[in-house]
Amino acid sequence: IPSSHGHGAYDPAKPCKRLVLYFHDILFHGGAEPFNATSATVANATKLGNTNFGKLIVFDDPMTRDAHLLSTPVARAQGFYFYDMKSAFNAWFAYTLVFNSTEHQGTINVMGADTISAPTRDLSVVGGTGDFFMARGIATFRTDAALGDYYFRLEMDIKLYECY
Amino acid sequence: IPSSHGHGAYDPAKPCKRLVLYFHDILFHGGAEPFNATSATVANATKLGNTNFGKLIVFDDPMTRDAHLLSTPVARAQGFYFYDMKSAFNAWFAYTLVFNSTEHQGTINVMGADTISAPTRDLSVVGGTGDFFMARGIATFRTDAALGDYYFRLEMDIKLYECY
Amino acid sequence: IPSSHGHGAYDPAKPCKRLVLYFHDILFHGGAEPFNATSATVANATKLGNTNFGKLIVFDDPMTRDAHLLSTPVARAQGFYFYDMKSAFNAWFAYTLVFNSTEHQGTINVMGADTISAPTRDLSVVGGTGDFFMARGIATFRTDAALGDYYFRLEMDIKLYECY
Repeated sequence: IPSSHGHGAYDPAKPCKRLVLYFHDILFHGGAEPFNATSATVANATKLGNTNFGKLIVFDDPMTRDAHLLSTPVARAQGFYFYDMKSAFNAWFAYTLVFNSTEHQGTINVMGADTISAPTRDLSVVGGTGDFFMARGIATFRTDAALGDYYFRLEMDIKLYECY
Repeated sequence: IPSSHGHGAYDPAKPCKRLVLYFHDILFHGGAEPFNATSATVANATKLGNTNFGKLIVFDDPMTRDAHLLSTPVARAQGFYFYDMKSAFNAWFAYTLVFNSTEHQGTINVMGADTISAPTRDLSVVGGTGDFFMARGIATFRTDAALGDYYFRLEMDIKLYECY
Repeated sequence: IPSSHGHGAYDPAKPCKRLVLYFHDILFHGGAEPFNATSATVANATKLGNTNFGKLIVFDDPMTRDAHLLSTPVARAQGFYFYDMKSAFNAWFAYTLVFNSTEHQGTINVMGADTISAPTRDLSVVGGTGDFFMARGIATFRTDAALGDYYFRLEMDIKLYECY
């Protein structure tokens, strides 16, 4: 039936591929760079509320298999996020996971709301290339650590339901 | 036939799910906030032309079932738009509809051009989560009201063709 | 099998539709506009590194069938890119190809990393409308020309694997 294509075709509990990776974001604060910054503020917060509404950050962040910042990255996350709520910290992300290793070559493209106050939140995997050709799925975020506005770490549980 | 996958699989007139909602954008103008602003300018217009080229707005806008601004929102639209034409008002949007009610839990992710001069314009629903798990479809915009750069209202006719 | 939906369904060498187009980006530098600028800087580069990290550009660029800037455009590319690496030039794009001619009516939505140092790089076609209703696929970028930060030209090889 065209109008209900796909109904029941996927089982959320059974992705065809799954990658659990950690995203490390170290925000640049100007001057010297003691923390080896991986992201920078491109537009400052507006005066709407006091929870960074409109603050826009571009990042090129390492992705690791465990929670250790200094583990060898298995991918880079390249993209941006911005804060978008005037009464609480809430963000929106769009980015590409770039894999360039013997294990994986290719990219995974993600976008969606990071409703920070929720224990976990789901974003959409909207496409992929190379080893992840035409992938679609869900990226589940969980905040794993946060140190003021200097560093935060997200667990990203990437579940693909279309694999080719 | 792999090279023509899906040919004819969907009938544009028969979405598997449809939501017609109104998007209310109230732009912050600094100082006090008499209009209960829901969006703010993150980067000002450039000097290329005089139709706001490059002006970037982040929003957290209420979505209602009817055209009344004060109706109870059924979702939030969180994302951004910017103007991108030097001879006319034309915009580009990427955002997430966030549903958090007894009726719907989940998100719908949208991106595309808002060619404002057209009576209606189609953007892509590129993914979904929760109740809208793995959704794809079309979001048709129609300008329903505009009051200078203080307020505008769009009808968003969300038609999903992949429902799971 | 739900968990491996689509495995082997597409042959990367056999798109159901293919468009090879040239993207021309002429960056506005203020003042008079001798080069008929089609893009403008919305946020300047940050001080993280010296390869334009964070520089954000909005564009409304002509797309032509051959490499000549002055050929009649067959579409407009409307969207943005930003630089996102502190040690090399690397970018990230999201945009819509807007077709409005007797040949094609509709849009194609694209996002992904433009890892400039690679000879070619793949981004995701995440959706389409009109003649490209519900399209998905790959957009392969190749730099065809670059003149400082005044002009660059990309070949975009758009391969759709879902056509309806």
